Amino acid sequence: MAIKLYNTATRKKETFKSILPNTLKIYVCGVTIYDDVHIGHAFSYINYDILVNYFKHFLGYDIVYVRNITDVGHLTDDSAGGDSGEDKVEKRATERKMHPMELVYTYSHRMWKYFDALNISRPNLEPCASAHILEMQEWIKKMLNNGFAYEVNGNIYYDISKFKGYGKFANKNIDELEKDTRFENDKNKRHPADFALWIKARPEHILKWTSPWGEGYPGWHLECSVMSTKYLGDRFDIHGGGIEHIFPHHQNEIAQNYGYYQHDVVNYWVHTAMLMVDGKKMGKSLGNFITIEEFLKKHSAESLRYLFSSGHYRKPQNYTESSIMDAEVAIERINNFIKRLQEIDNDRDTSYAKEIIDNTIENFKNAMNDDLNTPSAWASIWFLVKEANRLIGNNQLTKEEANSVLDFLQKVNLVFKVFNFEQATTKDKNKIQRAEIEELIQKRNELRKQKKWEEADLIRLNLEKKGVLLSDSPSGTSWHYE
Amino acid sequence: MAIKLYNTATRKKETFKSILPNTLKIYVCGVTIYDDVHIGHAFSYINYDILVNYFKHFLGYDIVYVRNITDVGHLTDDSAGGDSGEDKVEKRATERKMHPMELVYTYSHRMWKYFDALNISRPNLEPCASAHILEMQEWIKKMLNNGFAYEVNGNIYYDISKFKGYGKFANKNIDELEKDTRFENDKNKRHPADFALWIKARPEHILKWTSPWGEGYPGWHLECSVMSTKYLGDRFDIHGGGIEHIFPHHQNEIAQNYGYYQHDVVNYWVHTAMLMVDGKKMGKSLGNFITIEEFLKKHSAESLRYLFSSGHYRKPQNYTESSIMDAEVAIERINNFIKRLQEIDNDRDTSYAKEIIDNTIENFKNAMNDDLNTPSAWASIWFLVKEANRLIGNNQLTKEEANSVLDFLQKVNLVFKVFNFEQATTKDKNKIQRAEIEELIQKRNELRKQKKWEEADLIRLNLEKKGVLLSDSPSGTSWHYE
Repeated sequence: MAIKLYNTATRKKETFKSILPNTLKIYVCGVTIYDDVHIGHAFSYINYDILVNYFKHFLGYDIVYVRNITDVGHLTDDSAGGDSGEDKVEKRATERKMHPMELVYTYSHRMWKYFDALNISRPNLEPCASAHILEMQEWIKKMLNNGFAYEVNGNIYYDISKFKGYGKFANKNIDELEKDTRFENDKNKRHPADFALWIKARPEHILKWTSPWGEGYPGWHLECSVMSTKYLGDRFDIHGGGIEHIFPHHQNEIAQNYGYYQHDVVNYWVHTAMLMVDGKKMGKSLGNFITIEEFLKKHSAESLRYLFSSGHYRKPQNYTESSIMDAEVAIERINNFIKRLQEIDNDRDTSYAKEIIDNTIENFKNAMNDDLNTPSAWASIWFLVKEANRLIGNNQLTKEEANSVLDFLQKVNLVFKVFNFEQATTKDKNKIQRAEIEELIQKRNELRKQKKWEEADLIRLNLEKKGVLLSDSPSGTSWHYE
Repeated sequence: MAIKLYNTATRKKETFKSILPNTLKIYVCGVTIYDDVHIGHAFSYINYDILVNYFKHFLGYDIVYVRNITDVGHLTDDSAGGDSGEDKVEKRATERKMHPMELVYTYSHRMWKYFDALNISRPNLEPCASAHILEMQEWIKKMLNNGFAYEVNGNIYYDISKFKGYGKFANKNIDELEKDTRFENDKNKRHPADFALWIKARPEHILKWTSPWGEGYPGWHLECSVMSTKYLGDRFDIHGGGIEHIFPHHQNEIAQNYGYYQHDVVNYWVHTAMLMVDGKKMGKSLGNFITIEEFLKKHSAESLRYLFSSGHYRKPQNYTESSIMDAEVAIERINNFIKRLQEIDNDRDTSYAKEIIDNTIENFKNAMNDDLNTPSAWASIWFLVKEANRLIGNNQLTKEEANSVLDFLQKVNLVFKVFNFEQATTKDKNKIQRAEIEELIQKRNELRKQKKWEEADLIRLNLEKKGVLLSDSPSGTSWHYE
């Protein structure tokens, strides 16, 4: 049972085949470190965490996961070519009167703190751009030699006209790009969409290095070509990022890879959608900017992981306070279900549940193997919760079956990390026994016969609070767990 | 009131004068990352934490503290020249079948975790050697140009004969060094004590970079010259490290700095002594190797900080289980004292304590200003505890005086970080009121008159458990807090 992934390069779902047997080599574009990480970052990296966890725990792959840290070269105006404006890190550091590397040090550690708090697995390696200047210079030298780059006044540009099909990956046409007014009118460039590999530094610039072309710093796109291949080799399986990276960042990586190796490097390009907040793009000026730190003051990591995985990674998701509150309720429901399973002590030999469990496992895997269709994977789990609750209500789930459901949920949790298996073993105040439920239903029926509707309804409401739902029909009242 | 520091370069205590007004620029040699940090690391970095905290909170300096991470170039045999054996990081990574940078990533984060757990303040910057290869190559080029280095077969060596007075810093004589059999018999070297700036890599070596001299990696000593000056400038105040760094590491840094700048870079060289465990040098083979993780399973961070600061940083310290237990008792005594101070509610107008407090503050500062004489600084605090306890016993310490003692201890704690000011405000079970103490003493005296020695002694022992010590004299029984 192979997994299919949507490959941005081909605009198709493709059956995944790894380069090395049972090893996934994956590179994901990391954070540009100049401020605190926010829930937009969380959306992307939780989704990649789920991808990697699923490959590891369900598909049995060894993982080599590299995620970079951008600490130099990412300019403030990255909407088009990405070569105009100031270096984001240096600009913020100057405002704060800090050395840029101190800013990076501080916010890297804050990023790790909050990503850890969201239970996002660490990659195997987290290389920094600033630690690979020498390697970037080697790449530039080779691209100059190969004729894919040119120098003007201490700046080196990539010559997109030399890479046949530049733009194809991002569905862009070179002639249209030429008219795109968002490109800076840089007289040095032969084509407006040519992009910088090396940028000449002004004398007061701090983040700069010596080079054969004078003092300068690398263009943003170069680091990812260099660090992905340094640690994963000249061909690797998956390159991930956010949809905003498709152009220009990943298009330019592909061009650089070709300019250096003269072949493609990445087999599957994966992109996560944009997270909206209250229906708008998140932005500090819009007042809908939520850092992970702020989020965690009000809500749990599990609720965010549930919310994000309940939509599909390629579908834009809208974060609202009410959506996160719904997520909290959903998780509590499953945790109550887990507690119920853990308490089952019924060893009668029945087999009502086997088919339900088998179907669920199959549906879950089918969903996940279909381009990580997490909403559909969750639907299979909700089906299990509903059906198993019905069986528990009828006292028809054996301890053995409950354990196999728990085993499956434990495995699911290695991927999603949202459930709590270590709930208090002491009696829950809200816990209600089957006999008690049936007694209360009988009492309610008597009250209804006596037309004491309000008192009868109070019983129904109290049971509902304890997770027990009643349904009345002509043949009587049945109940099931929520 | 200026501070004096012992300068290894002059073998004298010198009055400290910073290069920039009220700014301390300090570089400390950090950890070579290939295994877990141990209490030997803790000894050194807690002492530097105390130094930096004292400069900041008592002397009013702004701090620029740089501590490096060695992730390449530190060879297994660093006893003499440091150029023989294998790269420590690469060797361990190969054993573990990991990429060397994954090993570094894993253990860096473990180092931060345990240093944080010991409350060791973070430096402003923690640069890695592997992130400064380009800068190191620039240094080598300039040293070659300046005539301080030579190339043999893709290796670059520092020519110690070109640096007049090589060996002086470490009290070594060049002619004696020539006979030191610990130096590897490297035919490439003109003098056995010449040391590698760049080491040619074998083809299978992973941690290597291109260079004008072929593929290789930097010698260990180079990174500290390069990173200290990159972030602190070509002249800075303090360079710290352990006593084991004096030769060859710091001697070679001095030589490199001269080879590059033709002047001295460091004004004060500070070195912490060696930590012994159970009277022996700590070593895995001796079975007396204690990681910080293991230490913290049994004892508190505060106890280690107290223990290490109760000796002087330049005096070898011997760690034993009983010494750490004594430290725990000492801290508890001070914490009890703090609780007692916090509970004082005596607003009579007295001035018994003023002189004691003033003397203590002055003695504390004098001790710390005398080359961070922490044992003597602690003696001043114990004097305060004893004298203030006496006044409390006599009900002669006012709330205002208690608060000024607390203020002083709060400030001291910014340096040492051992006290607990947030103790339970609920009544302590062990707490005993003055009236009760006096009642019990009277009862004991009566029992003694009745020659009921055992019963009388039981009262004494019970009071002792609660921190109240009795002294009998011909004029009667007096008591004081422990």
